[in-house]
Amino acid sequence: MTYDNSGWRKKLHTVIFEADTPAGRAFDVALIVCILVSVAVVILESIPSIGNRWRHELFIAEVTFTLLFTAEYSLRLVAVRRPLAYARSSLGIIDLVAIAPTWLTLFVPGAQFFLTVRVLRLLRIFRILKLTEYLSEAGVITSALRASRRKIFVFLFAVITLVVLIGALMYMIEGPTHGFHDIPTSMYWAIVTLTTVGYGDLSPKTPLGKLLASLVMVLGYAIIAVPTGIVTSELTAARGRGHSRQSCPACGREGHDDDATHCKYCGAAL
Amino acid sequence: MTYDNSGWRKKLHTVIFEADTPAGRAFDVALIVCILVSVAVVILESIPSIGNRWRHELFIAEVTFTLLFTAEYSLRLVAVRRPLAYARSSLGIIDLVAIAPTWLTLFVPGAQFFLTVRVLRLLRIFRILKLTEYLSEAGVITSALRASRRKIFVFLFAVITLVVLIGALMYMIEGPTHGFHDIPTSMYWAIVTLTTVGYGDLSPKTPLGKLLASLVMVLGYAIIAVPTGIVTSELTAARGRGHSRQSCPACGREGHDDDATHCKYCGAAL
Amino acid sequence: MTYDNSGWRKKLHTVIFEADTPAGRAFDVALIVCILVSVAVVILESIPSIGNRWRHELFIAEVTFTLLFTAEYSLRLVAVRRPLAYARSSLGIIDLVAIAPTWLTLFVPGAQFFLTVRVLRLLRIFRILKLTEYLSEAGVITSALRASRRKIFVFLFAVITLVVLIGALMYMIEGPTHGFHDIPTSMYWAIVTLTTVGYGDLSPKTPLGKLLASLVMVLGYAIIAVPTGIVTSELTAARGRGHSRQSCPACGREGHDDDATHCKYCGAAL
Amino acid sequence: MTYDNSGWRKKLHTVIFEADTPAGRAFDVALIVCILVSVAVVILESIPSIGNRWRHELFIAEVTFTLLFTAEYSLRLVAVRRPLAYARSSLGIIDLVAIAPTWLTLFVPGAQFFLTVRVLRLLRIFRILKLTEYLSEAGVITSALRASRRKIFVFLFAVITLVVLIGALMYMIEGPTHGFHDIPTSMYWAIVTLTTVGYGDLSPKTPLGKLLASLVMVLGYAIIAVPTGIVTSELTAARGRGHSRQSCPACGREGHDDDATHCKYCGAAL
Repeated sequence: MTYDNSGWRKKLHTVIFEADTPAGRAFDVALIVCILVSVAVVILESIPSIGNRWRHELFIAEVTFTLLFTAEYSLRLVAVRRPLAYARSSLGIIDLVAIAPTWLTLFVPGAQFFLTVRVLRLLRIFRILKLTEYLSEAGVITSALRASRRKIFVFLFAVITLVVLIGALMYMIEGPTHGFHDIPTSMYWAIVTLTTVGYGDLSPKTPLGKLLASLVMVLGYAIIAVPTGIVTSELTAARGRGHSRQSCPACGREGHDDDATHCKYCGAAL
Repeated sequence: MTYDNSGWRKKLHTVIFEADTPAGRAFDVALIVCILVSVAVVILESIPSIGNRWRHELFIAEVTFTLLFTAEYSLRLVAVRRPLAYARSSLGIIDLVAIAPTWLTLFVPGAQFFLTVRVLRLLRIFRILKLTEYLSEAGVITSALRASRRKIFVFLFAVITLVVLIGALMYMIEGPTHGFHDIPTSMYWAIVTLTTVGYGDLSPKTPLGKLLASLVMVLGYAIIAVPTGIVTSELTAARGRGHSRQSCPACGREGHDDDATHCKYCGAAL
Repeated sequence: MTYDNSGWRKKLHTVIFEADTPAGRAFDVALIVCILVSVAVVILESIPSIGNRWRHELFIAEVTFTLLFTAEYSLRLVAVRRPLAYARSSLGIIDLVAIAPTWLTLFVPGAQFFLTVRVLRLLRIFRILKLTEYLSEAGVITSALRASRRKIFVFLFAVITLVVLIGALMYMIEGPTHGFHDIPTSMYWAIVTLTTVGYGDLSPKTPLGKLLASLVMVLGYAIIAVPTGIVTSELTAARGRGHSRQSCPACGREGHDDDATHCKYCGAAL
Repeated sequence: MTYDNSGWRKKLHTVIFEADTPAGRAFDVALIVCILVSVAVVILESIPSIGNRWRHELFIAEVTFTLLFTAEYSLRLVAVRRPLAYARSSLGIIDLVAIAPTWLTLFVPGAQFFLTVRVLRLLRIFRILKLTEYLSEAGVITSALRASRRKIFVFLFAVITLVVLIGALMYMIEGPTHGFHDIPTSMYWAIVTLTTVGYGDLSPKTPLGKLLASLVMVLGYAIIAVPTGIVTSELTAARGRGHSRQSCPACGREGHDDDATHCKYCGAAL
């Protein structure tokens, strides 16, 4: 009986968690379609002309998808060898969070829009595509970002300091009469300007304000070069590191340059 | 007779499809001018003050160009050895599509504006310029884009996920009363903000909305660095690859410049 | 007595100026919190609904923080061996400037908003974090900027020249009737457009103006590539330099990674 | 007499054209100040409140500067050995154009604003600064731009094609009722959006228009990466080339890599 049990559990695991068999692949494709449709349902519900007319049908669709995803979540818990480990993994938490909001709507109206969090489940799409290649590409990007995290922290710190100072200065120059009602509003303007978004809901009216704004824009121009430079040089370096697949025959460590003939850690010939 | 036939067909082919002979070059220049004028005619027709006054003349010009391009398309079919292969090639399809809309206007008013698709025929301009050099430059750009297609897919996937989540969140924060009528509108705002376009037709009004918008802008600031970094590192790598194909016959080392005639390490002739 | 004196002075110095001891670390954390709260107080005071209601409490908080920072500044002067050198250092000047505005408000109303300058004191946060690592990252960025200062000067010179010429041209094309009241306003528009901020408070109305604006935008598109390129190539170069300081004692070749312990060419220990 | 003549001519040349002697340097500084003030006069004249009040004084200042610059231009013609070569050089043409508009104002009112072209004369500022270093930096930028001119042409060609197609499509989707009066206006919108300027004077109103606009923005996001990538990789390559100052002792050619031990053209040892 225990063996039998582990038999269907193994099969279930293959279907739900792997994408190599036809059944597993079909399950994954069906899941992606369900996720896409369920997110579309939530988005459509927010459009008044559609939401009012098809309220009932959309609600039923929502509950159906929630039941489906709840069933799928339960199956995952059953199929996996260590349910707690799965439930605590980031994918497991996303799976749980993607179910919760519908039950919430029984108490809190409007909570169904949190269901758009289901879009995160689309991460599973990388399993259908050739997983490893895309993951390695995503890995290059994230490792480039991680390697530059200190530079990014220094950069963000400088930007926030600038935003507070520019915000206070602009508040004193333009003042509430020109729409800069308080320093937070003025800081919001500083961010809108530094990032070159420029909504135009707030813009300087006095000559002095326009002069300061011009300086801020040119500064933003220079500043935008910094994160780009950081990420680019990390990506270029990551590409360089990516060439060094060779591991030392003596100590087994990797990370050698392409032109290296000796291990840089133990000196053995490569 | 058959020989004669292949004689004028060969000549026609030389004139229409090649740009090395004076006649071929003249044909290409005339064609480019026709394309430019015909696109200008369509654009001018859309301007009310001009379109109403010269409606008749512009319509005649349009039909004339369509007849000309139809004749040219027929000649191309005749001149080429394998008409079907030409008709199915991307250039052949563009040539056909550039004729179609005028005939459509007999049934669908307004269809003539599709004629701007003729602008795609300007691709032929590269034949008049020194073709190969420009194509190789275009090739560097497109191959850099192709090499980074997986990174770009991961990037676009992340952006779309972000847009859905930010859109739903902003819809709940600001709501229809501040112009965020539904989630698609809110997602449109998220794209306008993340790409730093910032029309200002929609902008947050509540303090919480402004705070979220500020975070989105700084995020967009960071995100814009990623595609730039990807393309730049690909272009740099493409440049690197272009230089290091040849290895020295004497010492076997690589990394020589394209214009090198002697090995830079041992001095042997390459 | 002199010895005793130098004893508590040394202890004071350790607490105030260093972050290695528990007391020093606690002092630094408390200082950062004080700075953050004092800046928040100034920002909150500018919001009418809060500023009017809690005017009295906020004023007291402001004076309290000023007294605290004045006391701290005095202690720093006492604890440091060469008070004048500290007072003239950039950190010392920031510490002084962070106190001044409150005393000014006795004479000039509104001067308290200059207190946001206190945000600069947050620079001390790098002492609590692992100082050296962050400083070296900041050093890479600033040295990259310093190395490219001449390129940036040439670039800024070109931008300002462009802004004057485009501004005058646009003033003549659009004129005061379309909001381009004078050349400075028109130059402000040119900067808003070249930096791709695009508030939309000023935009061309005439066809000729729109044509010029389109050219300016495409130009801005190209121009934005220049500072990014400068900073990126400097950062990449800085990274390169960081790796190739050490030369092999056996074969004399350079280009070893920072973590290499053996020469990658001959295998000798570094 | 001829000798004497050539004596003062030589002195004049040294003062006007060179910046190494104290007199030459003083002349250059005075010239820069004159140019700055004369441009400021033109800009101030455009401000109604100033221009109306001081019309007379500003006009006198303008004429005075024109007389000064005319005198200077004449002196330059006299001092230089080959006046025609100077008059035809780009600096000579700028010097001439900087005088012309004032004489024009006798016939065409408003022509004085063309005087802002005098700002181009500020190029002479590079003579006062250490000329060669800045010129070499400017040279790096311009040679990077020149090296990538074909890539930039291909890029601009693609952008213009896109703008025509997007413009026509948006004109058909949104139409005159939503402000897209004709295809040129619609193309203007496409440029405003692709370059991420986003004035907001025109923005899509229909759902389909917003969808197309979103696609255009994401496209613009990707497109902006291309010129940045081109310029960056050129600058990085230019830096690489910049290291190879060494010329071959045998054939005298330059452009060798840092690690080259033999001339890559003739194979001689370096």
